[in-house]
Amino acid sequence: MSDSRWQSREAGVTSYDGFFADAIARLQEERRYRVFADLERIAGRFPHAVWHSPQGPKDVVIWCSNDYLGMGQHPKVVAAMVEAATRMGTGAGGTRNIAGTNHPLVELEGELADLHGKEAALVFTSGYVSNQTGISTIAKLVPDCLILSDALNHNSMIEGIRQSGTEKCIFRHNDVDHLEELLKAAGPDRPKLIVFESLYSMGGDVAPINRICEIADRYGAMTYLDEVHAVGMYGPRGAGIAARDGAMNRIDVIEGTLAKAFGCLGGYITGSAVLIDAVRSYAPGFIFTTALPPAICAAATAAIRHLKTSQWERKRQQDRVRRVKAALGAAALPVILSDTHIVPVAVGDPAKCKAASDLLLSEHGIYIQPINYPTVAKGTERLRITPTPCHEDIMIDQLAAALVDVWNRLGLPRDKLARAAK
Amino acid sequence: MSDSRWQSREAGVTSYDGFFADAIARLQEERRYRVFADLERIAGRFPHAVWHSPQGPKDVVIWCSNDYLGMGQHPKVVAAMVEAATRMGTGAGGTRNIAGTNHPLVELEGELADLHGKEAALVFTSGYVSNQTGISTIAKLVPDCLILSDALNHNSMIEGIRQSGTEKCIFRHNDVDHLEELLKAAGPDRPKLIVFESLYSMGGDVAPINRICEIADRYGAMTYLDEVHAVGMYGPRGAGIAARDGAMNRIDVIEGTLAKAFGCLGGYITGSAVLIDAVRSYAPGFIFTTALPPAICAAATAAIRHLKTSQWERKRQQDRVRRVKAALGAAALPVILSDTHIVPVAVGDPAKCKAASDLLLSEHGIYIQPINYPTVAKGTERLRITPTPCHEDIMIDQLAAALVDVWNRLGLPRDKLARAAK
Ligand SMILES: Cc1ncc(COP(=O)(O)O)c(C=O)c1O
Ligand SMILES: Cc1ncc(COP(=O)(O)O)c(C=O)c1O
Repeated sequence: MSDSRWQSREAGVTSYDGFFADAIARLQEERRYRVFADLERIAGRFPHAVWHSPQGPKDVVIWCSNDYLGMGQHPKVVAAMVEAATRMGTGAGGTRNIAGTNHPLVELEGELADLHGKEAALVFTSGYVSNQTGISTIAKLVPDCLILSDALNHNSMIEGIRQSGTEKCIFRHNDVDHLEELLKAAGPDRPKLIVFESLYSMGGDVAPINRICEIADRYGAMTYLDEVHAVGMYGPRGAGIAARDGAMNRIDVIEGTLAKAFGCLGGYITGSAVLIDAVRSYAPGFIFTTALPPAICAAATAAIRHLKTSQWERKRQQDRVRRVKAALGAAALPVILSDTHIVPVAVGDPAKCKAASDLLLSEHGIYIQPINYPTVAKGTERLRITPTPCHEDIMIDQLAAALVDVWNRLGLPRDKLARAAK
Repeated sequence: MSDSRWQSREAGVTSYDGFFADAIARLQEERRYRVFADLERIAGRFPHAVWHSPQGPKDVVIWCSNDYLGMGQHPKVVAAMVEAATRMGTGAGGTRNIAGTNHPLVELEGELADLHGKEAALVFTSGYVSNQTGISTIAKLVPDCLILSDALNHNSMIEGIRQSGTEKCIFRHNDVDHLEELLKAAGPDRPKLIVFESLYSMGGDVAPINRICEIADRYGAMTYLDEVHAVGMYGPRGAGIAARDGAMNRIDVIEGTLAKAFGCLGGYITGSAVLIDAVRSYAPGFIFTTALPPAICAAATAAIRHLKTSQWERKRQQDRVRRVKAALGAAALPVILSDTHIVPVAVGDPAKCKAASDLLLSEHGIYIQPINYPTVAKGTERLRITPTPCHEDIMIDQLAAALVDVWNRLGLPRDKLARAAK
């Protein structure tokens, strides 16, 4: 839109684009304007990819993908997508209600209910949408519902809570005593919904699921658990942390994604048949949007089925994670320790975090996106490393060496003592 | 969740599932409980599909798909998906910022900006999300913004407006005089955003885009246009109704979907570079979710490119639409007339609408989903027919005969006089 258009107007407002330019300038001032790396993955060669840099294509190794197990390139998963696209076409062609409920989607929902040992499952276009419209719909259908929400819950859950319009209390991150205080204060008769994650993806820490379920039982609260960063990777069949901890049947609603360890796209909730039917019938973000394509559903089902029985990917990923933690610890890099597959390295400054990422990419061919506010709190900026089964020993050595080089060049602090592997 | 679990609780609340059962019972009482048809499309044979009925698989003809041009089975589109999945894998592997910006997605955004003659485009996981997070982000970035919204706007736009938290006024559907009143009342200095659709999908009626742009100019308002049901199908290159009416460059933001005429999945907005950059940087529903897979993006790009030059699909669809309107009019069926590709047939009662749909499916092998509240207002229930280039003459004759049979059996009123085709 040219400025002249606005200036020719009779009205007082002359340019809306100025508002948007201001908004961008604010980000640039705070050093948190984001530039996306244009990547072309190569199936069969992941974590290698082509980075379409401003100077032309370059080969890089990806160290920050949420395709945690490399299932996005698994031959079974790719073959399922190709087969379904060839046989059924590329799109669902409608909303779930109007011609969009395709057979692979129905099968996927059956697979997911089985995975989590629940009566039913409902698939959404993303994990984001499943949380946003799922939480808001559930909370709206429970009269006078009070939501209790972990302080570090993901934006999609926060938006779902906001959209529900119901009252909420925030409990300190993973603090069961604080949660209990709030539950007690709410009184026994008020319906209550506890909303939390099993594995918090930016620090890799894990919720005390069984203890939360205990007090949920004691105070008569429903539980809604986001397992987005755990499905496929924990538990004997890849159902997540609640499954690993023997708590899966204590949780009312388990939410997950098909876009991370399952290597595809989409999200879901699982729970009792009647709850799922109610969300299916009332959730606007589910009703008024085109269904997932058959090819995506078929690929996701192939990934879930494979990971229900194969332990190789999980074992190999855990082995790679241990090795990365050991290598970075030995190099005295400030790894934020956790028991999970996320390996965050503290930087603590948005400009340096971006500079570290830029140097890794341009000088070492290593792609690790800087994690700055608003994804994490200011002052806790970090590089977030996600080892996959596809990362070889030599890549790990190169990663450690590259990080040491970058840390030195940017004058970033290293730990006094090299740390032993956990 | 067994009841006993709840009953064993110390607290007062005994069963949450009761709330959800009540919610479903309410729908059943109002005769608007929905049952989804489980369909398996057959690429190359659309509109034929296999319906997985409770009695087993049956061949049906789909007459209500939003794959308006059958692009979901176009060999170029299927081939693009297969090629991209084979070469790059099934998922994007991350959010846009964290490893998810894949090369086909960047190319798709370029293609869309070109389609609408705008500086830039931004792709979302669905048209729903593009409206919801797009409108709310734009409105939030414009201080003290007043939103003017058409009374029949889609749920995704309504949710976007709600989420923005800004003040809104609703103007009577397509009523430019009412809109002008509201704009005048707002005063010249207040920033204003007009949000509307080009083609309203349940009645097939079209907005007076040029007249709305005129008064937007006069009163200094921004314009946001949803072209979801028009992209691919109108204008010489398939850019939509605004393009057809020579109004495309008068609109600030054009929003569309990749899931209807383009046969895939996803949504987008196009506009000035600075507006798109601001939405990219601030919209939570864009930032905190996994990017669209390369295979979906490549398929969508193939569909858009094809429809930029090929007129065959548009011409053939318009021809089929005319023929359907003529056949149903000649049979004195109560077609709601419009100038577009949507052919609604009035029923006016939710139970009869569902019964008509059920009879069509079970007795005639014709699938047309009933459209009841909340998708349309109560009392305006209808069957909504969407002819595609793939519907042959004989199918049209069979459709008219089947509708007449069903109308007779249900005692539904037909027009006194057979209507000539428009
Ligand atoms: C905890 C959590 N929940 C939900 C989501 C959204 O899932 P999806 O990418 O499938 O939209 C994410 C991140 O993407 C997440 O980190
Ligand atoms: C007017 C309108 N806008 C947006 C959407 C949502 O688009 P999508 O199906 O891509 O989510 C729809 C329906 O699906 C619609 O009818």
